[in-house]
Amino acid sequence: MKALVLKGKDTPLSYENFQDPIPQAGEVVIDIQAAALNHRDVWITRGLYPGIVFPGILGSDGAGRLNGRELIINPNIGWGDNLRHQKKSYSILGMPKHGTMAQKVAVEANKLHDKPTHLSWEEAAAMPLGGMTAYRAVFTRGVLQAGEKVLITGIGGGVALFAMQFALAAGAEVYVTSSSDQKIARAMEMGASGGADYKLEGWEKELASQAGGFDLIIDSAGGPGFGFFPKLCNYGARIVTYGGSKGAVPNFTPQSIFWKQISILGSTMASDQEFADMVAFVNQHQIHPVVDSVFSITEATAAFERMAKGEQFGKIVLRIETNNS
Amino acid sequence: MKALVLKGKDTPLSYENFQDPIPQAGEVVIDIQAAALNHRDVWITRGLYPGIVFPGILGSDGAGRLNGRELIINPNIGWGDNLRHQKKSYSILGMPKHGTMAQKVAVEANKLHDKPTHLSWEEAAAMPLGGMTAYRAVFTRGVLQAGEKVLITGIGGGVALFAMQFALAAGAEVYVTSSSDQKIARAMEMGASGGADYKLEGWEKELASQAGGFDLIIDSAGGPGFGFFPKLCNYGARIVTYGGSKGAVPNFTPQSIFWKQISILGSTMASDQEFADMVAFVNQHQIHPVVDSVFSITEATAAFERMAKGEQFGKIVLRIETNNS
Repeated sequence: MKALVLKGKDTPLSYENFQDPIPQAGEVVIDIQAAALNHRDVWITRGLYPGIVFPGILGSDGAGRLNGRELIINPNIGWGDNLRHQKKSYSILGMPKHGTMAQKVAVEANKLHDKPTHLSWEEAAAMPLGGMTAYRAVFTRGVLQAGEKVLITGIGGGVALFAMQFALAAGAEVYVTSSSDQKIARAMEMGASGGADYKLEGWEKELASQAGGFDLIIDSAGGPGFGFFPKLCNYGARIVTYGGSKGAVPNFTPQSIFWKQISILGSTMASDQEFADMVAFVNQHQIHPVVDSVFSITEATAAFERMAKGEQFGKIVLRIETNNS
Repeated sequence: MKALVLKGKDTPLSYENFQDPIPQAGEVVIDIQAAALNHRDVWITRGLYPGIVFPGILGSDGAGRLNGRELIINPNIGWGDNLRHQKKSYSILGMPKHGTMAQKVAVEANKLHDKPTHLSWEEAAAMPLGGMTAYRAVFTRGVLQAGEKVLITGIGGGVALFAMQFALAAGAEVYVTSSSDQKIARAMEMGASGGADYKLEGWEKELASQAGGFDLIIDSAGGPGFGFFPKLCNYGARIVTYGGSKGAVPNFTPQSIFWKQISILGSTMASDQEFADMVAFVNQHQIHPVVDSVFSITEATAAFERMAKGEQFGKIVLRIETNNS
């Protein structure tokens, strides 16, 4: 088969011939039609992830065919039986196990779900990791109820957009932040009630004046902005964090959360059950994942550059050049 | 009646004649037998609390008699119907409403519970605020399960000791911190499995070597020590904070909690239902609140001084001088 091969840290990805995957017990081999990028893939190319092996094939998100069935892939490997947290040995498809940025991938048969029929291959490939991460953050950890007010930071990112779409479908009132007025405007076209540019002084006051207070905040930035979240929270609110791209929170105080009974909830990925629930939710509400752009896998370098710049609004998808497409 | 009267900020408390309480609709007047101190009472004497009025009578904790019944008092005023959080207008007995450091107090009749028969007046008076705060922190917010490992910081404080007693009764393995070796030793006599002096360099490594990892941490300090908690946590652990005596946490990062699915849960006081559940738990397990010392209300200044020094192990109780005692 052909695959996008990572040969070393800070080494250009190479689209070339690679040994076909050999399925292990319980595994099947899928003909990938489309794959999608995650920030994780960019970090791995820079060596910023534990357990990197070379040569490797990146890609946690994929959709493809097996014996005439159209399928999407749950990228979990070994979450375990505990719904509250993964096992320490948990990993996901696309490093160290070879991932979806290839013509073929070997996955456990029980990780396959029917591709929602309302989705294109590109939309289906955009869904797995971002969708399941958002689903756990919003529903399992965030326990979102209809009518609640939700703040989703960094709109434009894959997980953030899924979180917004899921929260809107569940009947919540959604506000967003971004450093781009254009992304805020696009979120409002999709149903958000308002938003603020987090790079402007007083963004938190702007949000408070728009929304009053929030019942749920979904964040992957951390940093000094995180310290304002408790002030923006209603009593009993939940702040779910699934990332820390802006690093440490220098201004967190217990006082800001205990009187208001606020919860700060770390969340990452999702269990197999949550993946299944997420697919059912997407079907039920006929949600279309937001695809920022589609590149041929032969142009993957341009796709990775777009991801690294952070200008995308939605998922960046690779179309796999197949023998049958 | 006679009462301990607070006449102004940083003004000595005065035990003197005061107008008998006049019960409002739904209220009854209790003859107090014993009252107990909370840190809150000390802060109020220093003006460090919102909504202080003069003259006032402090005291959230009390036990007493009404028509031959022996009763303890739930200090909640207006928690509301939502079990997840109190109403904004919520307050507790003992400022602004006159409290238990008097011969009589007016309280809503539905806030009275039978005094557990295995408790003395002093033990019963020690229970309400600390017991309900610990109960919510450990069970409602912390969702403690039998067999889990629990770290309780600042052992010796009223809430911390109740938290330890409740966790032990629920079948957990408890570790503690203190700046006093003597308090750690006393906690271990009561059933704790180990502990560490948080003022010593490497206290967190000492705890990790003793316990491995924690499923639940109960803290009221915050400060730099709080930043170590996620490292001490198992996957899926909960960190419950009900105070912040050591202030801001300078070293908190989202990265430290999201991968391990850790929850940081603010908690304060408890609902009326939790108060009732706490009393039932104390009866079921025949728990005796830890009484550090008993002072006559005529010696209240000495009791407040002991509280301010932080040397106590357990609750500081005032015996009320009554006409029928």
